[in-house]
Amino acid sequence: MLIKIKKSAQSSDIQLIRQLLDQHNLGHRVINGQDMVIGVEANPSEEVAREIHSLNGVESATPIATPFKLASLAAKPEKTVIRAGGVEIGGNSVILMAGPCAIESKEQLEDVALGLKGTGVSVLRASAYKPRTSPYSFQGMGEEGLKLHSEAKKQHGLLIETEVMDVRDVALVASHVDIVRIGARNMQNFDLLKEVGKCGKPVILKRGMSATIEEWLMSAEYIIAHGNPDVILCERGIRTFENATRSTLDLSSIPVLKRLTHLPVIVDPSHAAGRKDLIPALAAAAVAAGADGLLIEVHANPKKAKCDGKQALLPHEWADLVGQLRKVAQAVGRSI
Amino acid sequence: MLIKIKKSAQSSDIQLIRQLLDQHNLGHRVINGQDMVIGVEANPSEEVAREIHSLNGVESATPIATPFKLASLAAKPEKTVIRAGGVEIGGNSVILMAGPCAIESKEQLEDVALGLKGTGVSVLRASAYKPRTSPYSFQGMGEEGLKLHSEAKKQHGLLIETEVMDVRDVALVASHVDIVRIGARNMQNFDLLKEVGKCGKPVILKRGMSATIEEWLMSAEYIIAHGNPDVILCERGIRTFENATRSTLDLSSIPVLKRLTHLPVIVDPSHAAGRKDLIPALAAAAVAAGADGLLIEVHANPKKAKCDGKQALLPHEWADLVGQLRKVAQAVGRSI
Amino acid sequence: MLIKIKKSAQSSDIQLIRQLLDQHNLGHRVINGQDMVIGVEANPSEEVAREIHSLNGVESATPIATPFKLASLAAKPEKTVIRAGGVEIGGNSVILMAGPCAIESKEQLEDVALGLKGTGVSVLRASAYKPRTSPYSFQGMGEEGLKLHSEAKKQHGLLIETEVMDVRDVALVASHVDIVRIGARNMQNFDLLKEVGKCGKPVILKRGMSATIEEWLMSAEYIIAHGNPDVILCERGIRTFENATRSTLDLSSIPVLKRLTHLPVIVDPSHAAGRKDLIPALAAAAVAAGADGLLIEVHANPKKAKCDGKQALLPHEWADLVGQLRKVAQAVGRSI
Amino acid sequence: MLIKIKKSAQSSDIQLIRQLLDQHNLGHRVINGQDMVIGVEANPSEEVAREIHSLNGVESATPIATPFKLASLAAKPEKTVIRAGGVEIGGNSVILMAGPCAIESKEQLEDVALGLKGTGVSVLRASAYKPRTSPYSFQGMGEEGLKLHSEAKKQHGLLIETEVMDVRDVALVASHVDIVRIGARNMQNFDLLKEVGKCGKPVILKRGMSATIEEWLMSAEYIIAHGNPDVILCERGIRTFENATRSTLDLSSIPVLKRLTHLPVIVDPSHAAGRKDLIPALAAAAVAAGADGLLIEVHANPKKAKCDGKQALLPHEWADLVGQLRKVAQAVGRSI
Repeated sequence: MLIKIKKSAQSSDIQLIRQLLDQHNLGHRVINGQDMVIGVEANPSEEVAREIHSLNGVESATPIATPFKLASLAAKPEKTVIRAGGVEIGGNSVILMAGPCAIESKEQLEDVALGLKGTGVSVLRASAYKPRTSPYSFQGMGEEGLKLHSEAKKQHGLLIETEVMDVRDVALVASHVDIVRIGARNMQNFDLLKEVGKCGKPVILKRGMSATIEEWLMSAEYIIAHGNPDVILCERGIRTFENATRSTLDLSSIPVLKRLTHLPVIVDPSHAAGRKDLIPALAAAAVAAGADGLLIEVHANPKKAKCDGKQALLPHEWADLVGQLRKVAQAVGRSI
Repeated sequence: MLIKIKKSAQSSDIQLIRQLLDQHNLGHRVINGQDMVIGVEANPSEEVAREIHSLNGVESATPIATPFKLASLAAKPEKTVIRAGGVEIGGNSVILMAGPCAIESKEQLEDVALGLKGTGVSVLRASAYKPRTSPYSFQGMGEEGLKLHSEAKKQHGLLIETEVMDVRDVALVASHVDIVRIGARNMQNFDLLKEVGKCGKPVILKRGMSATIEEWLMSAEYIIAHGNPDVILCERGIRTFENATRSTLDLSSIPVLKRLTHLPVIVDPSHAAGRKDLIPALAAAAVAAGADGLLIEVHANPKKAKCDGKQALLPHEWADLVGQLRKVAQAVGRSI
Repeated sequence: MLIKIKKSAQSSDIQLIRQLLDQHNLGHRVINGQDMVIGVEANPSEEVAREIHSLNGVESATPIATPFKLASLAAKPEKTVIRAGGVEIGGNSVILMAGPCAIESKEQLEDVALGLKGTGVSVLRASAYKPRTSPYSFQGMGEEGLKLHSEAKKQHGLLIETEVMDVRDVALVASHVDIVRIGARNMQNFDLLKEVGKCGKPVILKRGMSATIEEWLMSAEYIIAHGNPDVILCERGIRTFENATRSTLDLSSIPVLKRLTHLPVIVDPSHAAGRKDLIPALAAAAVAAGADGLLIEVHANPKKAKCDGKQALLPHEWADLVGQLRKVAQAVGRSI
Repeated sequence: MLIKIKKSAQSSDIQLIRQLLDQHNLGHRVINGQDMVIGVEANPSEEVAREIHSLNGVESATPIATPFKLASLAAKPEKTVIRAGGVEIGGNSVILMAGPCAIESKEQLEDVALGLKGTGVSVLRASAYKPRTSPYSFQGMGEEGLKLHSEAKKQHGLLIETEVMDVRDVALVASHVDIVRIGARNMQNFDLLKEVGKCGKPVILKRGMSATIEEWLMSAEYIIAHGNPDVILCERGIRTFENATRSTLDLSSIPVLKRLTHLPVIVDPSHAAGRKDLIPALAAAAVAAGADGLLIEVHANPKKAKCDGKQALLPHEWADLVGQLRKVAQAVGRSI
């Protein structure tokens, strides 16, 4: 259930509502957005619902069938369009986000930014903090990387996005970039979700490798319920027995999500495939299936990349791909 | 390794080759196609390879790196185009196969065939033998269904395809239909694969629910190695933890297969999704990813369907969908 | 629902029952066992149930909540004990079945049978028909192998069990062996299940690689519903993303099954692990979890084995293992 | 590779070693444990290895075949025994850790501690911070819960363990409890792993829901490489398609791990099963498979539990179970 609080409500009114919920063991959370809302874990019995309706501070109380509430179409039937810089994510345009896996140097960012020029890319992706399986692998350039990223933004007029892994880095990261990214391994790092809920920047939430679509939406709900409605879901493959690809890209999640949530959905075929030769087919399929954007790895010198070189496209391959994607987007009534 | 036998070879020459292979514990099989070929389980050592080359009946002996041999691009780099009636599967056209899950009655087939008219469908799919989880469920109309299917073919000028489950039914089924189908549950029913290898009709080989792409190609190899080169691979989803869909449609398999095999690849989004609202997005994605055809369930009266009614499109929904798919096909340089 | 038919019922009475079921679209099947029973796909509405009860030939009509009916504890609360030769499977004793993957020669069977002597083994496992991923691999000795197996039985006083893959071989196989085995790949080969339902010998039904426990029980239901109540379920691992083992042995299935069915459950750790060093730990775990038997690969000369040599124990390793398993069995109130 | 540094080495010597590694793009990390060691991501070429050996500060340089280095048996063949209070984890005794899912109140902890008395339990498990799928669910008592936990420790002479989720809480949590726990969702929260690497208390590292055994060991390597060798691996099930249990307990991981690592391995059957009726069979199987300990949920009043009540045993059920487990432990040469 979602309880909308009257603008005129006093804090004592809110106290009374919460007491009633506690009394019936209904987990909940007060959310201060444009309107004040109380998200309630479950739908109360009819009797309790009537009691809630009758309370002073309550403007409306809407039962929601799904465990995610604010993220649900039931709560908000119109599609969410997220504005970052002049870019609209979730609108008619399919948004292109491209760049290297990791930030490695000023020159590397420079080279890739130049390579992306004129290809319709809105957002330069790159990571300063890298979740690496081995403690002995390159862990990212950290704050120094963020600064290089910021410079590239100014120089090339691209928005920038990057991953944040540590709650202690959220404020710093958010101060540098236009879009904050939560990686697949942190999809259920709930303290991190709470923190980006307060960061004031749109958040790309990657699907966890073994997360159901429902769990993924519950993680989006965490971010919204902590104050940030600008969540972009990013499908990047799930772990299955098939080993021809690194993960199995679950493109069914796109139409499934469109029937469950108003949030925009983008696709990262690079991490799913783990090899660049599959990217064109998967990117085209994602656009055809209704993706609102793509997140793709491009590197001007993949052989020297410090990570994931095998899955990065060269700038000219990327440019060719965009040409093809544009046609597919038009075929499904979208633009690039 | 694939050993091509000289046209002039005597049976004693072939005996000598086989003795040599046996001596080195190299599993193999003699295949009588247009050319006589011996498929060998593994690649022999260089020394043994030289010995093979020197034998009388050997025209050529090609090592193949993958465990599938005849199905590999290494053995045959040009794409296989399968001709059934006037239809070419694997060519530039994306082939549409549609129809009900099960054959239920003359009227039902009639209704759906009329509904498909003019939508670009080449093949009327429908099953007379049904693999049902429960022994108490409708098991299909059997031979009577095959006859209805044949009649519909004559009446409506459509090719027909159907599933075969029992080795004892292969000849009968092949005498009725244009294309024989092996279902997901029988992908590794090797005796059935051997039997359809001898049936003289093209075979749709559905991917097993837990089959890797390599295992799938090995099952195709069985059919080819038993005399039938006309195998059409059909992606229909794999089993994963995600339960928003019945199976997880693995569209990555399309570009992966294109890099491994010359065989055509089609997609069945209906059984993967298990719900019809996802079909349009998944069908469009399949075409964009490079599918050579689609196998989709359409029923004129899904609510009365004896099985899988929830995933069947209505004829008018199908017609709308084809309109959209045509645009996507054009966008990727194909036609419908 | 299970409808028990009166001994005095006429065929016209049965006709009437079936007509009523058809009229309400209730899939069903008449089963001629000790009693005549009609298995019904689903539970009818209360009204229809009353009507059924009132019919002449009906002795009782029991709604069953699970989709498997005869296999359910609801239908038969007491544990099924299957008698084959003098051996009881499903009783207090944990039954040991051991032997090579494939029958390769008279000497090979002889060697392993001697190696198993005195270790408490009841059943000599070995396959004459082999489901092989590659059409070029050794496919088993076929009927010749069955004869060698029969001879070994006579010579060594062991029961024998073997796999059947082709419906056309069921009668032949059943005439040779004491227990017929359905392999994992054929768990949903429904025509084969129907055939072994009529074969008159106990059937080991291996779990499919991607089968849920419920689907597995539905396949057991097929066998029982076609006349054969003597089904032994065999857990052999499911396919997951983990690749340290060939399959993931799902030992939870044992206690889950004990709460759902009266059928005995055995475990095959050899095919699950795919490597022999894990067998002792997994076999001990299976016994501790409540397995009614074990199916384990033992070979006197694994290095020369035509298949699966890496997972076969040597006879002396097997003898050591049985010593350990005996202690675990006693610890959980069982004997070996 | 692991490079052991001479006690006499100067910081300039270490600098030289690191420069050489950087020069060859070999990721690495200096670890200050009892000895100073440099962990190197990969094994260098023979030539580079010779160069490393020749450097001044190098005492030894051991190539390690696996990606985990310090966690490998190659690095340390003898089993690690972790001492916490008077308890030895990884020795002959199978260690019992039991308690409620979440800390709810002083009375609740009191009740369960009394219930565990005399059952051989060494460690009282309970969580003050709870990773919950819904932002509206009870999130744990936090610091207040830690204090109640500490009091229970003093009162009942049990060691205590609890989960830590947020890097900012690590020091606080470690100051209260004897053993820190990393939950499945955080297995690849690398910043958290680094932080508990510095916390000075043994760490239970739960396996991620979709983590391979190798990835799990890589996460253990993170903790060790950041200064904490006392890592206890905890198998708690992996996510598969099977839904009869919440996760599929992968008991094969126990013998697999014993062949790869010296670290102790414990098993949590409660979270894997998600229902208490399976716990006795799974706990017995875990002990038979070689587990060094068990982590099991026990609650004196599960119906009122704020989370996971369905999987918690009652104290008297727990006491019965320990009696059975003791016999199984003896059967495999261990004690409880």
